[in-house]
Order: sequence, then C-alpha cells, then structure tokens
Amino acid sequence: MPFHSHKLPNGLQIVAESSPSARSAALGFFVRTGSRDETPEVSGVTHFLEHMVFKGTPRRTYLDVNRDFDRIGADYNAFTSEENTVFHAAVLPEYLPQAVDILADILRPSLRDEDFNAEKNVIIEEIGMYEDQPGSCAYDNAKRLFFADHRLGNSILGTVQSITDLRRDQMFDYFTRRYVAPNITVAAAGHFDWPELVHLVEKSCGDWLPGPVGRDGLRETPGSGGFQVMTKEKVTQEHVILMAGGPPADSPLRHAADLLSMIVGDDSGSRLYWALVDPGLADSADCSFHEYEGTGSFYSSFSGEPDQAESNLEIMLDVLRTVRRDGVKEEELQQARNKVLSRVVRASERPKGRMVAVGMHWTYQHEYRSMDDELKAYEAVTTKAIHEVLDRYPIDRVTTLALGPLASLSAPAANGHQ
Amino acid sequence: MPFHSHKLPNGLQIVAESSPSARSAALGFFVRTGSRDETPEVSGVTHFLEHMVFKGTPRRTYLDVNRDFDRIGADYNAFTSEENTVFHAAVLPEYLPQAVDILADILRPSLRDEDFNAEKNVIIEEIGMYEDQPGSCAYDNAKRLFFADHRLGNSILGTVQSITDLRRDQMFDYFTRRYVAPNITVAAAGHFDWPELVHLVEKSCGDWLPGPVGRDGLRETPGSGGFQVMTKEKVTQEHVILMAGGPPADSPLRHAADLLSMIVGDDSGSRLYWALVDPGLADSADCSFHEYEGTGSFYSSFSGEPDQAESNLEIMLDVLRTVRRDGVKEEELQQARNKVLSRVVRASERPKGRMVAVGMHWTYQHEYRSMDDELKAYEAVTTKAIHEVLDRYPIDRVTTLALGPLASLSAPAANGHQ
Repeated sequence: MPFHSHKLPNGLQIVAESSPSARSAALGFFVRTGSRDETPEVSGVTHFLEHMVFKGTPRRTYLDVNRDFDRIGADYNAFTSEENTVFHAAVLPEYLPQAVDILADILRPSLRDEDFNAEKNVIIEEIGMYEDQPGSCAYDNAKRLFFADHRLGNSILGTVQSITDLRRDQMFDYFTRRYVAPNITVAAAGHFDWPELVHLVEKSCGDWLPGPVGRDGLRETPGSGGFQVMTKEKVTQEHVILMAGGPPADSPLRHAADLLSMIVGDDSGSRLYWALVDPGLADSADCSFHEYEGTGSFYSSFSGEPDQAESNLEIMLDVLRTVRRDGVKEEELQQARNKVLSRVVRASERPKGRMVAVGMHWTYQHEYRSMDDELKAYEAVTTKAIHEVLDRYPIDRVTTLALGPLASLSAPAANGHQ
Repeated sequence: MPFHSHKLPNGLQIVAESSPSARSAALGFFVRTGSRDETPEVSGVTHFLEHMVFKGTPRRTYLDVNRDFDRIGADYNAFTSEENTVFHAAVLPEYLPQAVDILADILRPSLRDEDFNAEKNVIIEEIGMYEDQPGSCAYDNAKRLFFADHRLGNSILGTVQSITDLRRDQMFDYFTRRYVAPNITVAAAGHFDWPELVHLVEKSCGDWLPGPVGRDGLRETPGSGGFQVMTKEKVTQEHVILMAGGPPADSPLRHAADLLSMIVGDDSGSRLYWALVDPGLADSADCSFHEYEGTGSFYSSFSGEPDQAESNLEIMLDVLRTVRRDGVKEEELQQARNKVLSRVVRASERPKGRMVAVGMHWTYQHEYRSMDDELKAYEAVTTKAIHEVLDRYPIDRVTTLALGPLASLSAPAANGHQ
C-alpha cells in the first residue's frame, strides 16, 4: 500500500494510500475544527456550518451541488464531532476529478443570508429530534457533567437558544478563522493516480488562504466526579452513563484502552454483557473508549426498567471495580484482540475505511500508519499494559448521569474514589 | 477472481469466489426457504426457526454458540426474507475452519422445548415492536393487499396468534422438510483455500439428509389493484404505498427495472425526490424494485403530513403515469447507471458483499456472475429496454395502501388501469 503526502505552499496537506486492487476511490476533506473550538456565544456553529457548506457557492446553487454529486454517482456525506468536520465522497476512479472539484468548491461556501436563515429552522428541528432520543440526550449531558468547564463538554448541536441567536457574520468569522488551508487535510484511499490527485487539489485549493491554527484547552481531565439525576417523565426507560478518564489520542496506551473497553463492555460476550444483558437485567449495557486531543474517556452505560436501575448501577460499578482491581485474563484479551483485528481488517476493506483511518491519523499524529501497523499495535497489547491503563486511568472513578423517569437514584457509597 | 463450485453427494452445493488481495473471509449458508413456503397454520415459522438455530445443538448450548463466535472475533448474523434464510459470518482467514464448524453445527439445531417456549415470547415481542413502526406495518399490509392469495403476501414474522399457536413438532417438521441438503448453498468470498473449504464443508455437512425440494405458487402477478386505507390514530404521519408488478429474478429485464426504479425514486436526485421531498411536500418518497422467484414488484411510497396525503398521492401517480407514457431520458439513465455502478463496486469491496451476491445469484440462477458481469449488464441497459419494462409492467397500475391517522383517502380516478 504505497503512501504519499504533500503540503501545498498555503499549508493544506494531502495524504493518500493507494491500493491497486481497489475499484473505487474515497476522498475526504478533514477540517480540524469542532465543538471544542467554539465559545459559548457560538455554540453549535461548527455543525451548522457543516450544513451550510452544502448550500451553495459562487459557482453552484444548492441544487447544483446535489445534481453534480448525483451525476457522478457519488456516495457523499459529512459529519461534525468535538474535534473534526469531515466532508467525504466515494466514487468510481474516473470521477475523482469531479469529486475533488465539487468538494473543494463547497468548502468555500457563499453562506447566503437567505440560506442561513432557512437552515436555522432545520438545525433547530434537528436539536428537537435529538432531544427526543433519551440515549443521545443522556450522552450529551453526561459529557457536560464529566468535562465540566473543559471545552470537550460543549454540545455539538448547540442549543435552540444559541442557534436562534447566531448571526451570519459570527459564522463567517468562525469560517474565516477555522477553514484556513493549514487546518485542512485532504485524504484519499483506493484507486487513484497520485500526481493527478496533487494536481487536482492544487488547482482547486491552491489559492485558499493560510492563517494561524490553534486549539485551546488541551489539558487532560479525570472528570468532575459528579452524580446527577435528570428526570424525564415521558421516557419509559432509565438511561445511566458512567464516565471515567482515559488516555488521549496520541498516547501509546490507546490500543490497550480500546481492548480494555471491549473486554468490559463490547455488545456481545463482554463482562457487562454477561452481567446485565444476558440475564435480562438491562436492555443494553456497554463500554467504549473515546480518544481526543489531550485527553480521553471511558463511557460505560446501561438502559432498562427504572426499578432495576439502582441494582444495575451496583452491578456495573462492581464490574468496573473488579476489573480495576484484578485486571483482565489472557483469554479475555485474546478474544478482544480477535474481535478488534477482525473489525479493523473488515473496516479497511473499503477505501472509505482506509481514507478515514489515514485522514484521522494524520490529523492527530502527523504520521502514516498502515492497517498492518494498527494490527501489530493491537497484537502487542499485554495484560500488563491493560493494568497500566487501569492504574493510570481508574475506570471505576466515575462521573454518573441518569436520565429517565426516576426522580432520584442513590449515589453508591464508594464511587471509586479511594 | 477465480470462481469455484462443488456439489456434495447429498446435494448440498458450495460456491466460492476467491480474491487474493482480501484480508478476511465471508461465509454464508443460504437455505432456500422463506415465508412464501409457509402454510397459514405455521405463519412465521421460518423466521422463528432462524432464531432457534442460535439456541444450541447437541454439541453446543446457546452460550457456547455465542462464546465460540466471539472467541474468533466473528461478525455473524442471519436474516429471513420471503424466499431465503441466510446465516453468515465474516472472519479472519485463519478462523475459517471454526466458522464452518459453528455455522454447520447450528444448522442442525436441537429445537429444545424449553428454548422453543422461551423464544416464543421474544418473537411475539418482536412482532409488537414491528407493528409499532408505521412504515414497516404499512409495507407488510401493502404486500398482503397486492399479492392477495399469492404466497408472497405472507407475513415474514407471522402474527401473535400464529406464533402463539405454533407447536414445536410443526417447526421440527418444517425444518426436516426445508433444511435438507439440496435446499442449501454454502457461499464464500474473500481470502480462503478452496480445497480446504470443500473439505471442511464436506466433513461438517456430508451426513446431512437429502430430500425433495420444491416451492409452490411461482406464478407472475400484476397485483390485486386494490385500494385500502388503514386508520391508526396514534400514528402522526400518513404512510402511502403504491405497488405495481415487475419482472422476476431471472428476467433479462431486471437490470432495466432496477435502473427505472432508481430514476423514479432513488433517495436523492430522482423524479420523486424533486417532486415531493425537495419542495417539502413529503418527508420521504421513494421507489424500489424487488425481485422474487417467478414475479417482481415496484414499491413506490411516501410519508408525510396527513392533510397533504391526497395531493401527494396525485403527484406520485402523475410521476408514475408520466414515466410510463414518455419513458426516461438518456441523461437520467446515465446518472442512474453511475449511481448503481458506484454502489455495486462499493458493495463488492467487502468479501461479505460478494458472498451475498454470489450466494444469491447461485440460489436463483444456478450460475456465477462476477462483479464485472453485473456492471456490464447495467451498462448495457438502454432507454428502449426501460420502455420494454414499462410496457410489460405498467408501473402506474398500482395497488394502494395508506396507513396513518386518516379515516379515508380519495381513490384517484384512473388508478392507472387503462
């Protein structure tokens, strides 16, 4: 898998992994900006801007954007996270020039007043739908509680108030600061010609402005340790989330942290699965590891009947305390390794999977890692490395949020703080 | 992509497409049995049996089944349709022997009384959840109305009544008749060794009983032409489905039918998209082509505000009548071709995608088609071929079902029958 990289004079970076046997090409524009880069006054602007990017440019109306993507049969979309806004398309190799042209063009959007005002309603509707999903709502509030004054606690969608108040000039200002060339990486994978790709990107993005890039508040955090119950009477199930600190995205411990979360709470065959889901005590129970720039976190959660929430919380804490104290068994580690290797391999079989992996890795680490590098890193994890993660990031030192019909829930005695 | 096939003495068939560059292997057991093979007394038995297959064998408890799949990191699942029950797993190549062993073992399930009775409640719960989804419920009822006394109108899940009444010996009898070796195809794709695969399947399935295989009621049908409004007061949106006859799975017209449905109702850039979704008249509107043994159908549907249902129905019928009368433009065909080529290529990039394509094609046509064969078939479709489809299968000769809060809906004047 030959890897290539190139930096344009304005600072925009291009990275690509070509795989000669692929029959399609995947292309992504990774803008290193997300909800953690927002001040409270513009909460939600990153995600709103992602929408506006599809609303047209000086060269294309929003109908043209749709039609031009459709004409080449592109599978295209975008997403916004706490740290990244990514615009991507997968196409047959012969349509790569058009894909570069469309994606590059829309990344210099017109941000027309009329579209801005119309799209506001779409965003506000999206916030409403999101708030109607108790699982999503619990997740957002758990992050807010855990991260407290840390910027990773910012909501990605923003609030009805912040979006209503947002002005077009504030978005334009945010765009001008954050969508500068050095803050963008173009990643490609699959079947393409590297010199041609560089030429296409240079032609379309060579005149984008450079500018300073930065990100504030990169400190590591173990979380607030808070305990909060949010009562929503219309919800039938109680959703409980326990968050703990974890290693950041550039930590050598991140593969061990990922395997640990899988052993604790993968959706099948994990400790939480056998303790809560298989016996029918909870409808769902899982644990996952999320890595960010500067910090990371473990999210353990369950949902189920409200009257079982208290005993389920005890069981979950017991699972977390036990793993923290005794570590994991070689056999469990082997099973988790097999699962993750299988998932990495399957995700990598599509150019889109490799494009996202290569683009993300470059954005965070400024280095290339092949799929085999990733597999080796997972294979090298030992039970000792997992102990190290647990010592440094106590998975049972939790911040707890419950959302559902319950008016109260007893905070467990120890709460992992020792 | 070398293709291999082999038939065991008991009639079980093995087909496989190897791709040397793949890093995983996908394996599927295709049992040619589905809801259309059920009598009313055992409605839902195929799907219920699919669940029971995971509940254990003489060699494995249901915990063992889960653990053994988990141990090798398999991505495994199953699905039941009108015509097929498919059990599949994707694994790293070194775990193919275990994957064959587990899948083959569970396909000879114990069907224990205790598990049968416990699983009944799970199925009844699943029926309840399904009925709570207005879109799914409308789909099931539209099929029932369209197919009338044709067996393709059978519900896949069955009813609470039919499942409650079902006895273990009826399921055992169905299993004994339908899971015979000649009714099963094992398909593989990705990275594997063909002689080893044949050896593994032979060892695990060589003693499965042969038996007669058959399927009744293969006639083609243009649909009942009925018009029905089902009132569900708790539902907020009106869901309207218009079904018309289409070519069967072995028809040379099926690629043209697929492109036609895409031009009419793909989820972006189609005629229905521009007529109903883009202007905000309906929340969703689409058209898809479904092929079966002996017959086929076009499903056009929309959902949205109840008070717009009548005018939306007129608009949808107008779109169907116009395309029936005037056919499609070369430019539209080109766009649909680009979309479908791109989708076929992307779906084929994973061994799982090829495994399903190869297995399905063998089950229906007893022949091998490479991805390039499929691409060529789509590329060869002309506007004339689409006219042929429209002449032979009038897409505006519809059977209509509405489900939602409305108590009535005016049946349009012509209804496409001329």
